This record gives sequence, C-alpha cells and structure tokens, in this order.
Amino acid sequence: ARSIDLAVIPGDGIGQEVVAEGLKVLSAVLPQDVKLETKEYDFGARRYHATGETLTDADLDALKGHDAILLGAIGDPSVPSGVLERGFLLKLRFAFDHHVNLRPSKLLPGVRTPLAGEPQIDFVVVREGTEGPYTGNGGTIRKGTEHEVATEVSVNTAFGVERVVRDAFARAQARPRKKLALIHKNNVLTFAGHLWTDVFNRVAAEFPEVTTEYMHVDAATIYLVTQPERFDVIVTDNLFGDIITDLAAAVSGGIGVAASGNINPSGAYPSMFEPVHGSAPDIAGQGKADPSATVLSVALLLRHLGYEAEATRIEEAVAADLGERAGQPERTTSEIGDALAVRVAG
Amino acid sequence: ARSIDLAVIPGDGIGQEVVAEGLKVLSAVLPQDVKLETKEYDFGARRYHATGETLTDADLDALKGHDAILLGAIGDPSVPSGVLERGFLLKLRFAFDHHVNLRPSKLLPGVRTPLAGEPQIDFVVVREGTEGPYTGNGGTIRKGTEHEVATEVSVNTAFGVERVVRDAFARAQARPRKKLALIHKNNVLTFAGHLWTDVFNRVAAEFPEVTTEYMHVDAATIYLVTQPERFDVIVTDNLFGDIITDLAAAVSGGIGVAASGNINPSGAYPSMFEPVHGSAPDIAGQGKADPSATVLSVALLLRHLGYEAEATRIEEAVAADLGERAGQPERTTSEIGDALAVRVAG
Ligand SMILES: CC(C)[C@H](C(=O)O)[C@@H](O)C(=O)O
Ligand SMILES: CC(C)[C@H](C(=O)O)[C@@H](O)C(=O)O
Repeated sequence: ARSIDLAVIPGDGIGQEVVAEGLKVLSAVLPQDVKLETKEYDFGARRYHATGETLTDADLDALKGHDAILLGAIGDPSVPSGVLERGFLLKLRFAFDHHVNLRPSKLLPGVRTPLAGEPQIDFVVVREGTEGPYTGNGGTIRKGTEHEVATEVSVNTAFGVERVVRDAFARAQARPRKKLALIHKNNVLTFAGHLWTDVFNRVAAEFPEVTTEYMHVDAATIYLVTQPERFDVIVTDNLFGDIITDLAAAVSGGIGVAASGNINPSGAYPSMFEPVHGSAPDIAGQGKADPSATVLSVALLLRHLGYEAEATRIEEAVAADLGERAGQPERTTSEIGDALAVRVAG
Repeated sequence: ARSIDLAVIPGDGIGQEVVAEGLKVLSAVLPQDVKLETKEYDFGARRYHATGETLTDADLDALKGHDAILLGAIGDPSVPSGVLERGFLLKLRFAFDHHVNLRPSKLLPGVRTPLAGEPQIDFVVVREGTEGPYTGNGGTIRKGTEHEVATEVSVNTAFGVERVVRDAFARAQARPRKKLALIHKNNVLTFAGHLWTDVFNRVAAEFPEVTTEYMHVDAATIYLVTQPERFDVIVTDNLFGDIITDLAAAVSGGIGVAASGNINPSGAYPSMFEPVHGSAPDIAGQGKADPSATVLSVALLLRHLGYEAEATRIEEAVAADLGERAGQPERTTSEIGDALAVRVAG
C-alpha cells in the first residue's frame, strides 16, 4: 500500500488557515489506497516567544523522517525582523539542501492581472536556494556608531550553480517551448556573474535543443511587465529569484495563487512546499486569505512525490475555481477550500 | 555673466543620437546671457578597442574641471560584459562620489503604461550610488574548475547610508505628500539591513513631518505594479535601486522617458546626468531612439546647477510632446529633439 508521511507546519498568521485548506484538498484528491499520515509542528512566533527556539537540531531530526513538508507561513511583527526568517525558514532550506526553489507563474483564464491587455503568462522560475547573498556570511563592526560597517557576502560555487542550472535545463528541455533564460547582473557582479554565465554556457552545450538567453535582472523586471510571454523557464540566483518571483506572482494573478517548492532533487532530505505569500498578520484569523497558493503548493508536493495525476487534478480544480470567480461574491478561506475539495474529488 | 561648462560623453550605440538632441534642447532653453561651453569625450567601446583604456586618471582629472557631465550610454556587445560598466561607468560614479542616484518616475498624461487602469505614478527613487554590492569587492578562486568559488561583498557604512538617507528625507520633506519608503531586505540581509533600518529610523526622528514606511524589496516589486500611487520618495541601496528603477521606468512610460542624475550634493566633483536606458545597439544609428530620457536628464542637470525655471520648461515640453504622441506617426530621434527645442524656446 502506498503512503505519504507529511510534516505540516502551519506557522504564523494566515498560515494556519491556508494549510487547513491545503490538507482538506489533499485528503480529497488522494486515492483510497494511499495512506496519508500528517504530523503537525508548532514552529514560528508562538514557539519562539514561549521557548526562544526557532529550529533545533532535534527538530531537524524529526522533520528529516517525513516524505515531505507543507508549510503555511512564518513571520510575525512581534518577532524582530530576520529572527524567524534566518532562524527557521532559511535554516531549514539550507539544512535540507533545498537547492531548487521552484516557482511557476501561470496566468489562468479569468484571473485578474495588473497588466493591461491579455498577456500570456506561463513560465517557471528555478531559483537557487542554498547560496548567493542568502548564506548569512558577512558581519558588522562598530555597530551603532557613526563608523559602523556592515557587509553581506554572496557565496557562489561551481557545484551549487551547476546543479541548479542543470535542473533548469532539464525542465526547459521537457517543456514544449524549450526556452531557458539566465537572469543575473554579470556586468556589475562580475565574480559571481561570470561563474553563473560560464557554467550556464557549459551546460547549454549538453542541451542543444534548448534555446537560451541571458538577461540582466534590471532588464528582466521590464520584460516581466512588458513581454511576460517571452519567458518559459528562468534560472537565477537566490536573491534575484526572490525579487523576480514576487513580481512574477503579482503579474500572474497575485500572491494569492503563487505556489513554490523548496526541492532537494536527490531525496536525501524531504522537500518543502509553501505558498510564496507571507503570514499577512493584518488579515489573519478572519477567513479572508485565499488558500489557492497553498493548494497549488500541495499540487507541487504531489508531483514531487510521483502523484502526477492528482497534482494535475488539483491544478485544474484551482484553474476552474479561479475562472468562475469574476462577479461572484467573496468567499471565505474555508469556502474556497471546500469548493476545491469537491472539485478534485468529483 | 553666467556660464555652464559641460563635459559631454555620447558613448556607444544610441548614446550619440540622444545626446545630440539633449544638447539641442539645452541650447534652446538657456537664456541668452548664459554661456554654454561643451567638451566632448570619446569614452566607450571605440576608445576601449583602440587603446585598451576605459577611464584613466588623466581622464578623471579632465572631467573634474567641468560643472557637470551629460552621458548618453556606455556598452557594446563587442566588449566583454562588465569591462565598460565597471571600468568606466561605475569607476566614474565612485571616483566622483556620486552617492545620490536620483531617478524620478512620473507617468505623464497620454503616455502608455503596461499597467491596466489609470495608475497615478509620481515618485522619485533615491538610490545609493557608491556602496552595496557595487563596490567590486569579492573575488574568485579555482576559476574555471568544478571547485570554483566566487564571492561578491556588499559593503555598507553608517557614513554612506546616513548621507543618502538624509538626502532622501530632505527630498520627501520638500514634496507635498512628504512620504518616504525604505526598501531593503532586512529579514535576510540582516547585517546591511539592520544598518539601513537603524540609520533610517534615527534620521526619521529629525523629520517628524515625513511619514515613513519600510518595505522588503520583493514586496516592493508587487506594489510597483499593483499600487504605484503608494510611493512618493523611495530610498534604497545600490543594487535594489538598480532593479526597482528599471521596473519603475517600465510602468511609468518606459525607459524611453526615464532620466537619472548621479549626484554629488557637496559639489566637490561634477555630477553626471544620463538616461536610465542603455546603448541599445540593435537600433543604433537608425534615428529610432527616443531622446526624451536624455532631454529629461538635461532638465535634472539644469535643476542641479540652479536653473530651476529652465528645468521645468523642459519637463513641461516633454510632457506636452508625449501627450500629443498617441495616434501620430512615429518621428525620428532628431524630429523629436527639434520639436522639443521649439517648445522650450517658445
Ligand atoms: C521570508 C523570506 C526569508 C523569503 C525569502 O526571501 O526567500 C520569502 O520572501 C520567500 O520568497 O520565500
Ligand atoms: C550599466 C549598469 C552598470 C548600470 C547599473 O547597474 O547601475 C545601469 O543598469 C544603471 O542602472 O545605470
């Protein structure tokens, strides 16, 4: 018999609400013979305030045993900026070597975009997840004085760049348009930029069917709003990926529908799936959050675990639900979850 | 008698064409009693290929004597990425301590934006120009091997952050809405981010009339396309400023109309004014480039030198010209320049 052993981290703010709907849809879509086990972990602001802990070695050991992780959102204004981000979210991504941060952007029919006209948007960003300016390298001297100096070190390795570039080429190769864009800023960040560009060009030789282009990150933001149809697969560094995937989410229906996977393709550690949005404390507990991004993250999770048909069923359900929203009264978080659960079961 | 002694650097690609129009409009707008002297410098790809030089100490000495610098664009595909950017453009910005990189974004009536609806866009980005990841600190070991490591070091000082933050507060204070947003990524880049945030909050105490907010750079890209009216003045670091000003240009009429000033407010060195766009080699020499961004950069230049009325006249002329473009046949670069020269003179 098949089984999925899932770690569930609702986290802070709307995380609780959207994860509940994600699980509802997951239960509804799974075939009878698949045994779903879930274990909830209480990470985030509450745990931090109660114990001062964000993510301990014992926590990592416990999480390691699961097949995958579903995360809602982490972050609360009561916790100083960076404590939970660095102490939990990034710590987990780094500890479990989530080097492929996968973020699809697809503008579904009937969904509102801030862009004029009827842009065609269907691309996926492969964001590096374990290097770049996210390593936490750097420091501060003479803190709080007029002579303070603070540094941030972006660390980039051939090993780290090549594996994510290779993953992106394979994804581009598997898509009908077979296009891959490298986004960086190699005219200014010449050390890291040349490493990325050299590795990209070397791996490109192994994928002759993939059409490639290089684009500076600043120019990429222009194309994302003027010619988003230009993109098929994008590969980029951790920080540039953070920035352009929020912009990509905004133009392709908003962060209410943007899903992501923090993937360790080797399977050595469980991969983690989470909506791109944050904990949105301003609307927490009011049933106002759109669970679609979390539900779509569940689809990515299922695809990662080999449940392709179920993943597609979820994606089609969300697309259908979004397509029928225009002109309808607002629904609560759980009403949307209910509707999606019915659709995927049906 | 008053005089302006201007260094002119047409540079590469469309730089030549747009600078010619900038000078045309400058001559037309200046009162009779102002003596305009210009000296052209041949920096860029041609000089690099001929001599291997990008910007020598002697060049810097010569440029230093001018009141201001007007630059077209630097960069050509025949030169390896980074050589002219680091060797000329950034070298000049750093040598002349251009720490206030000023980039206004205003969507003028009648101008096309990729955004739906009728967004109100009128803000200015104050981008730090001499620190951050642009310092060129960092390096590469084991280059070209599978063990290559490349680093980029973002350097941030209390001195450098405070002066640009102070400049931004003063600009916000002088504007009707008196709003200032700090954009950074202080939840991940905690060393630099906390320095920026601390300095920002400290200086804020001196400007009680200015309303402030903090925003992560990823979230800022969302607001730039969904609520651009939210912004009045933005202050941010060198790299984030690079990225968001291209996006800002895209949503507020395109890089054909985005002007910038690389300003040294102390006057110790001449400030440099340039369009945000690049050298666009694909359309160079064809009279297709829009000189408006360069002409608006001339307006910033004049304002910097104290010619407020003339600066405003240019801005009004460009606004009027853009407002009448819809439905009209395309004009050449010099036809647009001619029309603007007539307007400012009239
Ligand atoms: C919360 C933050 C640390 C995180 C990131 O920067 O990666 C978030 O913005 C994201 O994109 O998942
Ligand atoms: C050409 C490049 C070095 C430059 C920068 O990154 O600052 C450009 O993009 C700009 O914004 O002026």
